[in-house]
Amino acid sequence: MQPAAPDRDALGDEIMRRIERIAQCSEPGPGVTRLPFTAQHRRAAALLRRWMEAAGLAAHTDHAGTLVGRRDGDGRGALLLGSHQDSIPQGGRYDGMLGIVLPIVCLEYLKHAPLAFAVEVLAFADEEGVRFPTAMPGPRALAGTFDAAALDLRDRDGVSLRRAMREYGARPDDIAQLARAPDQVLGFVETHIEQGPVLQHRDLPLGVVTAICGIERWSVSLRGRAAHAGTTPVELRRDALACAAEVVAEVERYCRATDELTGNVGALSVTPNAVNVVPARVELSLELRAGDDRARRLAAAEVTGRIRRIAENRGIEAALQQTYAQAAVQCDAALSDALQTAVTAAGCPAHRLVSGATHDASAMAAAFPVAMLFVRCRDGVSHHPAESMTAADAGAAAAALIAFLTRFGGR
Amino acid sequence: MQPAAPDRDALGDEIMRRIERIAQCSEPGPGVTRLPFTAQHRRAAALLRRWMEAAGLAAHTDHAGTLVGRRDGDGRGALLLGSHQDSIPQGGRYDGMLGIVLPIVCLEYLKHAPLAFAVEVLAFADEEGVRFPTAMPGPRALAGTFDAAALDLRDRDGVSLRRAMREYGARPDDIAQLARAPDQVLGFVETHIEQGPVLQHRDLPLGVVTAICGIERWSVSLRGRAAHAGTTPVELRRDALACAAEVVAEVERYCRATDELTGNVGALSVTPNAVNVVPARVELSLELRAGDDRARRLAAAEVTGRIRRIAENRGIEAALQQTYAQAAVQCDAALSDALQTAVTAAGCPAHRLVSGATHDASAMAAAFPVAMLFVRCRDGVSHHPAESMTAADAGAAAAALIAFLTRFGGR
Repeated sequence: MQPAAPDRDALGDEIMRRIERIAQCSEPGPGVTRLPFTAQHRRAAALLRRWMEAAGLAAHTDHAGTLVGRRDGDGRGALLLGSHQDSIPQGGRYDGMLGIVLPIVCLEYLKHAPLAFAVEVLAFADEEGVRFPTAMPGPRALAGTFDAAALDLRDRDGVSLRRAMREYGARPDDIAQLARAPDQVLGFVETHIEQGPVLQHRDLPLGVVTAICGIERWSVSLRGRAAHAGTTPVELRRDALACAAEVVAEVERYCRATDELTGNVGALSVTPNAVNVVPARVELSLELRAGDDRARRLAAAEVTGRIRRIAENRGIEAALQQTYAQAAVQCDAALSDALQTAVTAAGCPAHRLVSGATHDASAMAAAFPVAMLFVRCRDGVSHHPAESMTAADAGAAAAALIAFLTRFGGR
Repeated sequence: MQPAAPDRDALGDEIMRRIERIAQCSEPGPGVTRLPFTAQHRRAAALLRRWMEAAGLAAHTDHAGTLVGRRDGDGRGALLLGSHQDSIPQGGRYDGMLGIVLPIVCLEYLKHAPLAFAVEVLAFADEEGVRFPTAMPGPRALAGTFDAAALDLRDRDGVSLRRAMREYGARPDDIAQLARAPDQVLGFVETHIEQGPVLQHRDLPLGVVTAICGIERWSVSLRGRAAHAGTTPVELRRDALACAAEVVAEVERYCRATDELTGNVGALSVTPNAVNVVPARVELSLELRAGDDRARRLAAAEVTGRIRRIAENRGIEAALQQTYAQAAVQCDAALSDALQTAVTAAGCPAHRLVSGATHDASAMAAAFPVAMLFVRCRDGVSHHPAESMTAADAGAAAAALIAFLTRFGGR
């Protein structure tokens, strides 16, 4: 039985209502504070489980603490949907939770519709990584990449991840059993609030993600010479801050001119940092992100070369060191095309974009095809109590996900 | 009796020897640490007194703790020479002390030469202002601008300036008696190591100061918007640090292009200062110095206007506040011309420059004509144990000062 064309306004309102409701599973204070394996997590999971069951899903908590709601199919493998239940301290209500509530509401809508495959909705415990110095045990468990050494890491109160999982009711020492054979998984589709301003800027409700950015970070140390600001004419200085200013401007200019590359100088400190002393040293951070690792590495070589030349021209010693690198994750082309077709079928222009942030899909991509649907975010504000999106956009996302599920053929 | 042409090598060596000797009147540690009204000050003053007496000067300590060595003249008033005995912690050996030792050595050379005026060599106690939150009681006392309220200010150990002066043997409550009638003073001539690189850059041993810079300082607050560095494309940001970089570059460009104006952005701080967050706020300091107050104020209006426009173009809120202003001090034209004639007579090219730093002459100028002779400083390094100058330049300065004294007609 094919359902009637979805009433996207009603679906959008329902999604927003549930997100409001579950936002109350939070520590007191502004926004949502729901860390993994806490009382707030437990309350949120109980609510999600009720909604899963109402949608006809059989729910259980797996050994890694992921809440799994499953609707069986014909045995050719399951399509996985979901995102994370946790938030940063005083975070937003849509980040993560939209990607759990949306598929539950859609599957409730499709409760009596035939689907040619099994579906699971996954509510991962910990994506943000703010409680423990690690993250994403849930998707890593499924992908078979979970490192059991992480179980010994401790939170600020000295509680290990192992103990927190056990007290929550999970079985951390059996996590290795969770690894899914790739042929059991048709793919992982994650819906997420954009956390950036691109869709709003383009006046679009939805976007399909092509890749999750790779990231590299550099520390840049510029060493000039301290001097008396009154007695040393500008042309006789070796001013580390004037050099840094040229570096910051060059990074901005290069990133503006280079498609699909984003960069940031976010941290900068000056020594001796006194009003009447010409700055002797500046330490600054440089971050570059791109959906394509090769393009990012080429850009990094070019940008760091330009920084060295700027410093050399000013008689400044520059020391650059790469401090971090994380490879980009490509979304699966077929799954993304199917998602894009569904977005179009839902009446939305099909815009593709790169995700600048990391998601559960990053870890899932180690073993499974992944695709991501982004939903427009108000003013790009995320990780903040003011994070916001509209019911209309939630409805558009529901229409697109329903179109995707009803058209998806399994394999 | 006119003395033979001075042996400037011998005079230079003698000056360097004495400066080495008196540098030992210091707290232990690198460089010279000689704060006012301390045991180190007492030891240095005892040595200076001996040298003054050997030069035929009658020495006494005045009520403000200034060591005064006087050679009487014909009653038409005294020419004052001198500088400060104190140093910053771990400072250089020439800063201040050159301006005391040099005239003593020159007057010893001229001991039997007739001079048509009285001469006094002044060793001021406190120019640096590092022990008490005030400075220059000595020259202010002579100029009649000393504010007795300063006597209640305390050092880090809770000792008041009054008590420190008394224990040193001065009579702080009688300081008002020290004010000299302007017609008793022919002028004040201060010799000082340049503390900057200008003379070295021009390959000149000596310079005559035209003015002591006025200074104004501004605090500049730039408020943009924090954003996720991965999800917010460069062109959609309001990046406070990128704005600050443009400001720093503009200050540098403007000061380079504007004669006799010096500027500095010495302090800068970024909020939230995280590698992956677009900077929301930057606070920076702006300092402008010029020998002419009107030119400085016009430049400040132009520079602050440019900063406001840069911010406006980027959607950044800029708040600028002037936090400090100090008027420029003009050197006396006739006295400076006489000094320049003497420099030329000593065989040195006559270079005029503005002093970027404050000196005892700044306070003396409130009541008396002042002139300053600058001596080349190695690499512009000052306020540092490595502060250095050559014996040859000390000899050139001695030849110039002797020429000045023997040519100066009094009034």
